[in-house]
Amino acid sequence: MLRYLSGGESHGRCLTAIIEGLPAGLHLASKHINRHLERRQQGYGRGGRMKLETDRVEFLSGLRFNRTLGTPLTLKIDNKDSENWREVMSPEGERNEDVTPVTLPRPGHADLAGGVKYARQDLRDGLERASARETATRVAVGGVAVRLLEEMGIEVFSHVISIGEVQARLEGVSYPVLKERRDHSSLFCADPAAEEKMRLAIDAAKNGENTLGGVFEVRVKGVPPGLGSHVHWDRKLDGRLAGALMSLQGIKGVEIGMGFASAERQGSMVHDPINYSPDKGIYRPSNRAGGIEGGVSNGEDLILRAAMKPIPTLLSPLTSVDINTLNEDRAAVERSDVCAVPAASVVGEAIVSWELAAAVKEKFAGDSLEEMLQSYRFYLEKVNKTLGRGKENS
Amino acid sequence: MLRYLSGGESHGRCLTAIIEGLPAGLHLASKHINRHLERRQQGYGRGGRMKLETDRVEFLSGLRFNRTLGTPLTLKIDNKDSENWREVMSPEGERNEDVTPVTLPRPGHADLAGGVKYARQDLRDGLERASARETATRVAVGGVAVRLLEEMGIEVFSHVISIGEVQARLEGVSYPVLKERRDHSSLFCADPAAEEKMRLAIDAAKNGENTLGGVFEVRVKGVPPGLGSHVHWDRKLDGRLAGALMSLQGIKGVEIGMGFASAERQGSMVHDPINYSPDKGIYRPSNRAGGIEGGVSNGEDLILRAAMKPIPTLLSPLTSVDINTLNEDRAAVERSDVCAVPAASVVGEAIVSWELAAAVKEKFAGDSLEEMLQSYRFYLEKVNKTLGRGKENS
Amino acid sequence: MLRYLSGGESHGRCLTAIIEGLPAGLHLASKHINRHLERRQQGYGRGGRMKLETDRVEFLSGLRFNRTLGTPLTLKIDNKDSENWREVMSPEGERNEDVTPVTLPRPGHADLAGGVKYARQDLRDGLERASARETATRVAVGGVAVRLLEEMGIEVFSHVISIGEVQARLEGVSYPVLKERRDHSSLFCADPAAEEKMRLAIDAAKNGENTLGGVFEVRVKGVPPGLGSHVHWDRKLDGRLAGALMSLQGIKGVEIGMGFASAERQGSMVHDPINYSPDKGIYRPSNRAGGIEGGVSNGEDLILRAAMKPIPTLLSPLTSVDINTLNEDRAAVERSDVCAVPAASVVGEAIVSWELAAAVKEKFAGDSLEEMLQSYRFYLEKVNKTLGRGKENS
Amino acid sequence: MLRYLSGGESHGRCLTAIIEGLPAGLHLASKHINRHLERRQQGYGRGGRMKLETDRVEFLSGLRFNRTLGTPLTLKIDNKDSENWREVMSPEGERNEDVTPVTLPRPGHADLAGGVKYARQDLRDGLERASARETATRVAVGGVAVRLLEEMGIEVFSHVISIGEVQARLEGVSYPVLKERRDHSSLFCADPAAEEKMRLAIDAAKNGENTLGGVFEVRVKGVPPGLGSHVHWDRKLDGRLAGALMSLQGIKGVEIGMGFASAERQGSMVHDPINYSPDKGIYRPSNRAGGIEGGVSNGEDLILRAAMKPIPTLLSPLTSVDINTLNEDRAAVERSDVCAVPAASVVGEAIVSWELAAAVKEKFAGDSLEEMLQSYRFYLEKVNKTLGRGKENS
Repeated sequence: MLRYLSGGESHGRCLTAIIEGLPAGLHLASKHINRHLERRQQGYGRGGRMKLETDRVEFLSGLRFNRTLGTPLTLKIDNKDSENWREVMSPEGERNEDVTPVTLPRPGHADLAGGVKYARQDLRDGLERASARETATRVAVGGVAVRLLEEMGIEVFSHVISIGEVQARLEGVSYPVLKERRDHSSLFCADPAAEEKMRLAIDAAKNGENTLGGVFEVRVKGVPPGLGSHVHWDRKLDGRLAGALMSLQGIKGVEIGMGFASAERQGSMVHDPINYSPDKGIYRPSNRAGGIEGGVSNGEDLILRAAMKPIPTLLSPLTSVDINTLNEDRAAVERSDVCAVPAASVVGEAIVSWELAAAVKEKFAGDSLEEMLQSYRFYLEKVNKTLGRGKENS
Repeated sequence: MLRYLSGGESHGRCLTAIIEGLPAGLHLASKHINRHLERRQQGYGRGGRMKLETDRVEFLSGLRFNRTLGTPLTLKIDNKDSENWREVMSPEGERNEDVTPVTLPRPGHADLAGGVKYARQDLRDGLERASARETATRVAVGGVAVRLLEEMGIEVFSHVISIGEVQARLEGVSYPVLKERRDHSSLFCADPAAEEKMRLAIDAAKNGENTLGGVFEVRVKGVPPGLGSHVHWDRKLDGRLAGALMSLQGIKGVEIGMGFASAERQGSMVHDPINYSPDKGIYRPSNRAGGIEGGVSNGEDLILRAAMKPIPTLLSPLTSVDINTLNEDRAAVERSDVCAVPAASVVGEAIVSWELAAAVKEKFAGDSLEEMLQSYRFYLEKVNKTLGRGKENS
Repeated sequence: MLRYLSGGESHGRCLTAIIEGLPAGLHLASKHINRHLERRQQGYGRGGRMKLETDRVEFLSGLRFNRTLGTPLTLKIDNKDSENWREVMSPEGERNEDVTPVTLPRPGHADLAGGVKYARQDLRDGLERASARETATRVAVGGVAVRLLEEMGIEVFSHVISIGEVQARLEGVSYPVLKERRDHSSLFCADPAAEEKMRLAIDAAKNGENTLGGVFEVRVKGVPPGLGSHVHWDRKLDGRLAGALMSLQGIKGVEIGMGFASAERQGSMVHDPINYSPDKGIYRPSNRAGGIEGGVSNGEDLILRAAMKPIPTLLSPLTSVDINTLNEDRAAVERSDVCAVPAASVVGEAIVSWELAAAVKEKFAGDSLEEMLQSYRFYLEKVNKTLGRGKENS
Repeated sequence: MLRYLSGGESHGRCLTAIIEGLPAGLHLASKHINRHLERRQQGYGRGGRMKLETDRVEFLSGLRFNRTLGTPLTLKIDNKDSENWREVMSPEGERNEDVTPVTLPRPGHADLAGGVKYARQDLRDGLERASARETATRVAVGGVAVRLLEEMGIEVFSHVISIGEVQARLEGVSYPVLKERRDHSSLFCADPAAEEKMRLAIDAAKNGENTLGGVFEVRVKGVPPGLGSHVHWDRKLDGRLAGALMSLQGIKGVEIGMGFASAERQGSMVHDPINYSPDKGIYRPSNRAGGIEGGVSNGEDLILRAAMKPIPTLLSPLTSVDINTLNEDRAAVERSDVCAVPAASVVGEAIVSWELAAAVKEKFAGDSLEEMLQSYRFYLEKVNKTLGRGKENS
């Protein structure tokens, strides 16, 4: 079983995570993680803080000469500006009188609900953890998962498909083109024309002291049939992926394959027929299901989309109420991004990677990478035989 | 911690579930469960099987004189037509030669992926469990959760808001009216005009040997702020609710509050301001967040929507391939519902109830109902004080 | 992951369990379970109830033509005398005035602590579940695990090694002889001379209106090296086995290998050297560790012992206090066994079987038996190569 | 739910742990942890490494001004001599040719079984984590638990009761005297006469190039009745405590209350009567059960004992076999303690503290300390009333 816990406040000393259950012998280097951390910090529409941080992972345990030991992997990412917050966020010592508590909860954040839940007088105690800064950990953890999936030939890819009201048009764009365009886009969007409009929309929102959300898509190639399970509700792959994506800061909707659109069409236009050809074996001519039927991956690409609400912190802030005085006031401005959808798409990629790695570990187990891969190959051979596929397709 | 496991094949002898972690002293009777089971079987657009079954729960353990004992609660629901399937589904004994294996997987189901995963030659081995028949268990388990939530004054309510392309219009409909209309609707839809069109759409689909999906909404009233948690990704209430809903058969999309629409609007139109008035204390003039901010319930009504794809089994079936002969053929017709969205809405209500009950147990614990309620009341008092609410609002 | 939940009160209608995570394709029949259930009911020194019950398992889900489906397996064992308790233990309906509550807690049972914890006025609400009747479920669940382990060539065996002050002497008794003698012993003890004395001790205790405990040993043959793990405290095989055994009713001590005796000796007399011979490969000339080093199975036989206290219910009962009147009184006599160590040894065998099956599933995973066995064989081949063993030793 | 993961190799850079589920508002400082870490490093019979290390905890997250935030608490303990091992244990970079792999597994350790399981060529990859160095983490984590238990008035105390064949005699020693003597003993043993003999035994073992084990006892005062549960096997307090203790390096036996001795005596001499007196309410005149009946704490002191085998690494080492050459050789000497039972007693105290804190959190939940304590007090009041205790006893 793969599992992890993570810790760290936004302006504390660092972020941490411990991953337990990795196979031994997996090649892993900080560069594998840092490339994702860097991408998370990019994207047109980010504010000042992103420029400050250049996140780098450190491995405190579980790795030796760039090979996992099978022991718990500890990751640490320093908060680069923590020095400036030392007095405010000190783990130990007396609270300095200068450290003013946050008592005005920001609408759209966990500030009020979290403060009430944990009975905090200083709302900073909660907001520091609820912050999207935590997603750096998820990206790092997901980066480890990516390495494992790569060994199985599974590739997870995300891109931005809408910002505000601007939708990308991607019909007929092949996967290699999609990837290349995404990599060269300041918004991780594979439709250059839409990207241009998205940038204008972001600029307009900024000028209006407003913010924008959007939708990103995650695609996964090379997924074998049989991840997840239909036999028990809490093992269904769609449920696990959707739950994990919805747990990401700012996400308010998740859909798979045709998603909400499938609720509007007739059955014959929604389900994917099963076909056979001598060279492909049993195959699907379409993938409206998004690669999951009955809670089980069906061998087609996974396709998921997540809707992100606009960043709640507005330069022209909403009304709030001070929990001490009960006076209404304008909410504080803790950061100044206009749009974080590109960053969220990177986190979404990491989240999907983690869940898939967990599903792969659940099915193929093994304490060393060699053992895992052997089980994986045996299974694929058997599947290909059942599906009437020649060896060239494995 | 509340947990449960469930078992049972669609045409096996019965469905079962064991719930562990319930407080002792909760009033519970089969009628509390059967009312939900009955609703699950209703809804215009269901086929013959629904008429056959009249599901009834039996308690095999954990209950005495209609009070929970705090011990595991075992639920059993007999499959009413299991007698006819005795030979086909016999747990023990030789397989009769007359029992023909299913070798033609149905598109849109787990048949193929599940069969490959579990290495079954007879696809019935998998489809019997992947079947939506399993949702009767989820409704029963959810019915137990409803009883617990009722003690806390938490009310979970679902209704159908679209079937195919027909959308209900519910602006300005008050909650009491919504409930009453839903209860008198053959489609659990609170817009009578839309309901009429939905029935016509179902009839048209039936005539065209087709099927329809739709969208249902779940609302929860009386939720205290502070369920779920922002401190760790796997404890976020939105993630847990979305994951559980997406694990329901046929669901391809889940959204909370404004959901996907929030991705299109500017921040100032999405987030809910925080206001104060002497009689309400701290309150929200709007609820676009759907009652969850930062993974934590914020005290407003929970609002979730789930999109269901059309039933995959078509009277005019899609192409499939026999896994033995590799010949293409028309998929088998295992059941003949045209639309199951009303039933799904009942299951969705049960699923949300279960997840909320688990969140309530996590926060308030207690081995007896009395102990739980005492913790609950103490917390509410404290919250109301923080939010500047008078005693009359608790 | 293998997991299960169980339910059922001692005088309720039945006992139940749902096992989730079994591979598909495992051959399983009620006779495989009933043989263990029968053994649990045997043993010199049991009272009247054991004669009444002839436990039989029924499979309510997860099995078809004696092959597991990979879906949750539901087990049910009827309580044979439940008819006589129908009024007392009725799940639903009004409590009959004739049903007198139990208010005098029995020393040595969970009656008082459990009653207080769950806030029960009638202590029967708790004692019905705390009863050793529950162990029938554990035996049934363990019987399923035994079937899985058999496929891997792993054999779990238990025998009684002491009753009261009488100790079996088993030095130099070979494993086949041990098994045969155990099977022919009325106390599951492989030393006939000791068995005779044990029977006399039981008779004497009975005459003195007293009870006796004892110690049983569980041995496991065919365990591969590498079950459990040293990498995280909660994955250690010794911890998991000891915890599971200690959770059995009446157990007050557990030891592995030399156990407590190892605390008295010098290191050179406790640890097992590692040797090599061309025909055996790397091997151990001794097995003082009981097959586990550092929380990992080392390939030697597992050897565990558990100490059972005497049955608490005495014909000449201890003093207790009525929780209503606070008057002291003699505790009630709910059953009349003198010694249940033989039965406990059967349960211990089942418990160890379950934990090992869980550890096997964790390491080898696989959704079908074929897949599991393939991973298992691949691993064994690799291990044998590392340990310098020829093919004849695999 | 309280949970934690830990990481760290013995000669790596540091040890880490993340604890999730702590209530907010708990007072916590490094001194609370360091006092336990220091005690773990003491004890007559330790070798050179203990002098080198002076373990100190650092809080990387979850704490602010010495109050927990309710967010995950990250602990870090640096390995003081890691500088000397930098080249050998480098997480990243090429393996230096000078870094010779360990290929001779040490008897009594996880070296061989762990190496085979994880398919490691250099056994150091496994032994670094299996090392008892990991217990520093368990002590630190347990130290946090101690702080929580202190708030509930629960006190966990351990002491050494035997080293090799030398047994402490403690009949009639009161708890305050026990504590004081333990604190002034170089072996954490409360019998000064026995301590003297234990030191001589350790000296003798050292001269003989041998090692010694022993037994420690953990006592817990102030435990309320009702921790753990009889309703499901995996919730029983005895099972959880025993499993956790057995997972400690070197432990081969665990017993509760009378333990193995209870298997030899008649029932009337083993079970604890239940008595009443107007001033004590319902009480027990004896505590042979060690505070747990039926898997539930009964309100008496918890009493557990654990048997530790002698340290496996002998100055005069046992035979082993090189896994590359298959040649027999003398095992390597990685460290040189003669006896680690005093240290183990400190770890045992921490382990029991953690499990109890988890059981307390399970029963009383609460996201803030205030909320937890409120539930706790309400429950105690109720219990005292049931047990006929006056307010002065609460």
